[in-house]
Amino acid sequence: MKEKLTLMIPGPTPVPERVLHAISKHPIGHRSPEFQEIVEKTTILLKWLHQTTSDVLTITGSGTAAMEAGIINTLSKGDRVICGENGKFGQRWVKIAKTYGLDVITVKANWGEPLNPKKFQQILKNDPTIRAVIITHSETSTGVINNLEEISTYVKAHNNAIMIADCVTSIGACNVPMDKWGIDVIASGSQKGFMIPPGLSFVAMSEKAWEANKRSDLPRFYLDLNAYKKAVDKHSNPFTPSINLYFGLQEAMTMMKEEGLDSIFRRHEKHKNAIQTSMKSIGLDLFAQQGFGSPSITSIIPKNIDAEEIRKSVKNDFDILLAGGQDHLKGNIFRIGHLGFINDRDILTVIAAIETTLDKLGVASKPIGTGIETASKILNAIN
Amino acid sequence: MKEKLTLMIPGPTPVPERVLHAISKHPIGHRSPEFQEIVEKTTILLKWLHQTTSDVLTITGSGTAAMEAGIINTLSKGDRVICGENGKFGQRWVKIAKTYGLDVITVKANWGEPLNPKKFQQILKNDPTIRAVIITHSETSTGVINNLEEISTYVKAHNNAIMIADCVTSIGACNVPMDKWGIDVIASGSQKGFMIPPGLSFVAMSEKAWEANKRSDLPRFYLDLNAYKKAVDKHSNPFTPSINLYFGLQEAMTMMKEEGLDSIFRRHEKHKNAIQTSMKSIGLDLFAQQGFGSPSITSIIPKNIDAEEIRKSVKNDFDILLAGGQDHLKGNIFRIGHLGFINDRDILTVIAAIETTLDKLGVASKPIGTGIETASKILNAIN
Repeated sequence: MKEKLTLMIPGPTPVPERVLHAISKHPIGHRSPEFQEIVEKTTILLKWLHQTTSDVLTITGSGTAAMEAGIINTLSKGDRVICGENGKFGQRWVKIAKTYGLDVITVKANWGEPLNPKKFQQILKNDPTIRAVIITHSETSTGVINNLEEISTYVKAHNNAIMIADCVTSIGACNVPMDKWGIDVIASGSQKGFMIPPGLSFVAMSEKAWEANKRSDLPRFYLDLNAYKKAVDKHSNPFTPSINLYFGLQEAMTMMKEEGLDSIFRRHEKHKNAIQTSMKSIGLDLFAQQGFGSPSITSIIPKNIDAEEIRKSVKNDFDILLAGGQDHLKGNIFRIGHLGFINDRDILTVIAAIETTLDKLGVASKPIGTGIETASKILNAIN
Repeated sequence: MKEKLTLMIPGPTPVPERVLHAISKHPIGHRSPEFQEIVEKTTILLKWLHQTTSDVLTITGSGTAAMEAGIINTLSKGDRVICGENGKFGQRWVKIAKTYGLDVITVKANWGEPLNPKKFQQILKNDPTIRAVIITHSETSTGVINNLEEISTYVKAHNNAIMIADCVTSIGACNVPMDKWGIDVIASGSQKGFMIPPGLSFVAMSEKAWEANKRSDLPRFYLDLNAYKKAVDKHSNPFTPSINLYFGLQEAMTMMKEEGLDSIFRRHEKHKNAIQTSMKSIGLDLFAQQGFGSPSITSIIPKNIDAEEIRKSVKNDFDILLAGGQDHLKGNIFRIGHLGFINDRDILTVIAAIETTLDKLGVASKPIGTGIETASKILNAIN
């Protein structure tokens, strides 16, 4: 039976019924007082989620639009920046930065390993001309979480540099206290922890980021954050926004507020642990280095079989969509997204489906049920 | 009673129930074969609507994003271009062009009057260095339609220039045969004739536009149309698209195909005539010069009263949202959007509401019913 799809990819993530109902309402005028109220309320909730008193701006576009906006609104051609690169989204940062003529120093780590914060510290110490450090917090392509907190500390100590982070698959999944950690620009997208369909993205800008904005001379129009700032101060948008996704944003953020930040983070942590431990218990390896698994995505290395075969079989038999490996990882890993609107039942379901599939494909090394037993202990210990 | 809103602004326009149902479905993976099928089908339908064999690319963003994409993918810093300016969206073209350092020659007309095509012809004749002519087809701020067909002829005769047009409120409302007229770039947005909520926009690119693209050196990433072209050839998107609005796009384009281009254009022409003639019959003036009324928006000059009073009263008593005048026109005109999912009943409704409101506010100069009588004759003559 088809038509009963469950998404367990890193995005789009499952959308609650409340949100689907909200986005199916007839649009209203985006210059009306009723819409201004939605902009005002969602902006307050976005600041709450980012744990910041700074601006959080909503763009109609994908997470990449938010990433690009973060760069082109704070930097100038020729500016020297450090980009962290340990996966596909780190590579995207480098590409965007080079597109705009920035002078990019790349700090790399192998895919599956975290960035070494000390390398950033060292470069920053010796080079007062650095204008920005740009990294991916949760690297969606590998399932690795980078130490944004520590790297931010070194950036904070530097006079000129700002900290720009892609938090697309970390915000709404784990603790990202923007003000406390001193992050200056956070880019994210709606189809992740926000639990709404893709089409909106968010850029948070600290005071230091706005200071950098004053000297930034890169050309921009649709992604000119000054226009968004001017508009949001009047509870409005510079251009016609995705009105129906705004309806969804309001509903989803209300649900997040009801659950509470701590509960959201605990739930993701529990699910990450359940997935990681159960996968290891059935003899599969994790791609991310121990201790650096993302709260949102777990990358798994199957043995004696192409990862795509498992992924296709799980999709075909159980209509659960898992993600494959990207680029050179294709066939080597599959990825489970456990981000956003995911409950314990979803975790048990995906583990049971994977166990059943490994058995069907003749590559199970443990009795079926081993993974479920492992996961259930973690779920029961915390519930 | 509130909560029974009818939109008669130039956008967002009313959305059919079929489309609202489509967008409220649970998202699917944007890299799945199921989604590729949607991209393939909607792309074919978009080409049909644009009457072109060239590429029509779908961007997650507003119409302004499509406008900007049209410029930054075909031109280079210092390029000399002619911008037509006879309203707010003409001004926006000039702003975008200047943001990217283009050398802009502005051809102006008073707001309410159309651009004079001969002025474009003259400049093009004497200046072989012109790289583009950039105009707004239907100027949403004034309700004027410019003669894109004639202006395109002069651009076609020029060796270097391409024709870039904002067709945001003309495509899907009146005939815009891209290939026949020789338009090179068409920008449009979803919340207009497309009958879906805002959040998607479209850029059509002719062969000549792609030729221009090869020498264009303006920086771009999210709006890099080469990335969209490369992706769409594989029925995909370069970045995560607004999946749910794509569901709506497919449904709305299917409805448009069912109705047929000629019927759509005839319906808009009839409604324009009914609104124009009825408004004149009750003693109101039209803002757009005779013969140059947009098929989508009619701007009306009330007498002896602030236009905003009428607009607010119509909203308050009948929950019909009309648009006000922008900038210096605020209070001088109100605008009726009759674009997209509008039937004869909507036309009668808005006329009756306006007549009733003028009477209530003590500024009716004709007996109530005069406007309805006038409109009914036009509707009956064509139905």
